[in-house]
Amino acid sequence: MSRIAPQELERFVERLFLDTDVSPEVASVVSRVLVEGDLLGHHTHGVKLAQGYLRDLRSGNAKGRTSSLQIVRQSPAAVLYDAGYLLGPYCVEQALDFTAQAARTFGIGVASIRRSHHIACLAAYLQRYTEKNLIPLVLTSDPAVASVAPHGGLDPVYTPNPLGIGIPTGDKPVLIDVSMSTITNGLVNKTHQAGGQLEHAALIGPDGQPTRDTAAFFATPPGAILPLGSLEFGHKGFALGTLVEALTAGLSGFGRKDGVKQWGAAVTVLTFDPAFFGGVDELKAEMDHFVEACLASRPRQPQHPVRMPGHVGIARRAQAFEQGLALPDDVLQTLRTAAQEAGCDYPF
Amino acid sequence: MSRIAPQELERFVERLFLDTDVSPEVASVVSRVLVEGDLLGHHTHGVKLAQGYLRDLRSGNAKGRTSSLQIVRQSPAAVLYDAGYLLGPYCVEQALDFTAQAARTFGIGVASIRRSHHIACLAAYLQRYTEKNLIPLVLTSDPAVASVAPHGGLDPVYTPNPLGIGIPTGDKPVLIDVSMSTITNGLVNKTHQAGGQLEHAALIGPDGQPTRDTAAFFATPPGAILPLGSLEFGHKGFALGTLVEALTAGLSGFGRKDGVKQWGAAVTVLTFDPAFFGGVDELKAEMDHFVEACLASRPRQPQHPVRMPGHVGIARRAQAFEQGLALPDDVLQTLRTAAQEAGCDYPF
Repeated sequence: MSRIAPQELERFVERLFLDTDVSPEVASVVSRVLVEGDLLGHHTHGVKLAQGYLRDLRSGNAKGRTSSLQIVRQSPAAVLYDAGYLLGPYCVEQALDFTAQAARTFGIGVASIRRSHHIACLAAYLQRYTEKNLIPLVLTSDPAVASVAPHGGLDPVYTPNPLGIGIPTGDKPVLIDVSMSTITNGLVNKTHQAGGQLEHAALIGPDGQPTRDTAAFFATPPGAILPLGSLEFGHKGFALGTLVEALTAGLSGFGRKDGVKQWGAAVTVLTFDPAFFGGVDELKAEMDHFVEACLASRPRQPQHPVRMPGHVGIARRAQAFEQGLALPDDVLQTLRTAAQEAGCDYPF
Repeated sequence: MSRIAPQELERFVERLFLDTDVSPEVASVVSRVLVEGDLLGHHTHGVKLAQGYLRDLRSGNAKGRTSSLQIVRQSPAAVLYDAGYLLGPYCVEQALDFTAQAARTFGIGVASIRRSHHIACLAAYLQRYTEKNLIPLVLTSDPAVASVAPHGGLDPVYTPNPLGIGIPTGDKPVLIDVSMSTITNGLVNKTHQAGGQLEHAALIGPDGQPTRDTAAFFATPPGAILPLGSLEFGHKGFALGTLVEALTAGLSGFGRKDGVKQWGAAVTVLTFDPAFFGGVDELKAEMDHFVEACLASRPRQPQHPVRMPGHVGIARRAQAFEQGLALPDDVLQTLRTAAQEAGCDYPF
């Protein structure tokens, strides 16, 4: 496995987008966010996505010009965008920048985006804001995809509906990026290509039994991903998935009811400014106390101490800047093909 | 099991609080919210709590006068309260009323409350706002209690950290009230008193094994409640519990770091006005479409069709208004004792 300097990878990915007629501002944000996904270890949601984004740009299913992002309605603390399928990372960062500024004035800002293109790795957005002592929160669903079953049901109805939140502490921030289902679509696809046996029984087959076999997901009629909580406590994961569905597709006013077929996202982001509430120092002291108590909890398995969300990713990121980024073979293969398809040289 | 008219139960509970020197405004809200918990079927978080609230009022650990609720900081869209351990339902409803009004102007409102007393059943707050076509969201943690272990750990560090959200639809609202742990403290206590065998292995024992036996929770050293997702996917429930911890104790600036020992709550509430975003009609159409698709999902067990969060509670509530409310024996026994302790007649 070869190691690539993160800056070189970012320049290469940026070049692919620039050569596909994407605005410089958009190409810059999208390449940075994709590489950030890999830096944090989310290889299913990093530069591997570039190929699909570029294909959608060429077919017209994704847009690359900043002018696609339109403000539908705006108050000093809230905004609704229609993104017209502009590449998602640019839309999300514009939305977070708006909410960060609103939060400085009002304590809170919120932005909802309809018809965004895919928004990649949620964790990749967060540190830019935690470094400014803000708490950014990102929620998303994809109205064109149905892969998760409601609790008690067999048929896939909605998406893993993840959320990401960044929490400043006195030391490393806590970076949360979790779906409201047992696993993501990306993991199902990746596992299916690599033999088809998941680590846990995260799917429900058409026969109503939980299964590790991804073949069940692709059967006719199809299986589905179980909500977080699985059979025993899946009513909670289903409720949380419904929360994300309502605050994204529901709030933005565009979703499954509109019969959308193309890859995209309904997104809502919020930013809280702790300075406006109990104070930045108090937040950090409280979270430091919490992190310390969690890390001090006796481990269930001595070789696996408790870890805070995002801390493994932050360590990986630092290592990649020192030693270069090691990308899995499937990611490198996809990049090579994406370069060919875009008519660009492949440098790695 | 005798059946009680909800209005009579509310008047009786209100009388207990009035006779314990609670302000009429506070007694009115607290009794209404407690009865609402029972109406929706949450008997561990309904009028059964009155006894503990009344005892804390008499000892001075809870306050009953509206003047306890102080505004620390306020913008047109956000407010931080210090509640000085005023009874929680009054604080939460004041906070939600503020955020509902802010949402009408800005699309969003947020309120954080430190040093609230306990806030009872989250689902009980929601319909008041969904009926006005708003989306209310309530998050809470109790800094004085540690019952849930971080993922991978054995020692209890934090609380179930629930959230509640109400979502308007064209028909019945969706009412979500779920903890970020497998089960609640209330269910552990109730089950322990009733024999000690949980339906699922929701606890982790001091030996590191999941268990249904509540004795493990009360052992020395103690066991703990597992995060939502259990051993396989508990990193997600732990992340979501951390989110709630940060947005409640962290944001309000008062929590575990302050060494608090008395029963209480850190609370944050938000309200979204969908009219400001994609529109009320679009939200309702989107959620109706989603609910219909969920209910149409083939059931895993034919006798258990898919149910939306809150819909069983709403049906129970309607039935209670027609036929009277049937309270479990343990609730009635607690009410009888509470009346004795408050020097009031017990009418049921």
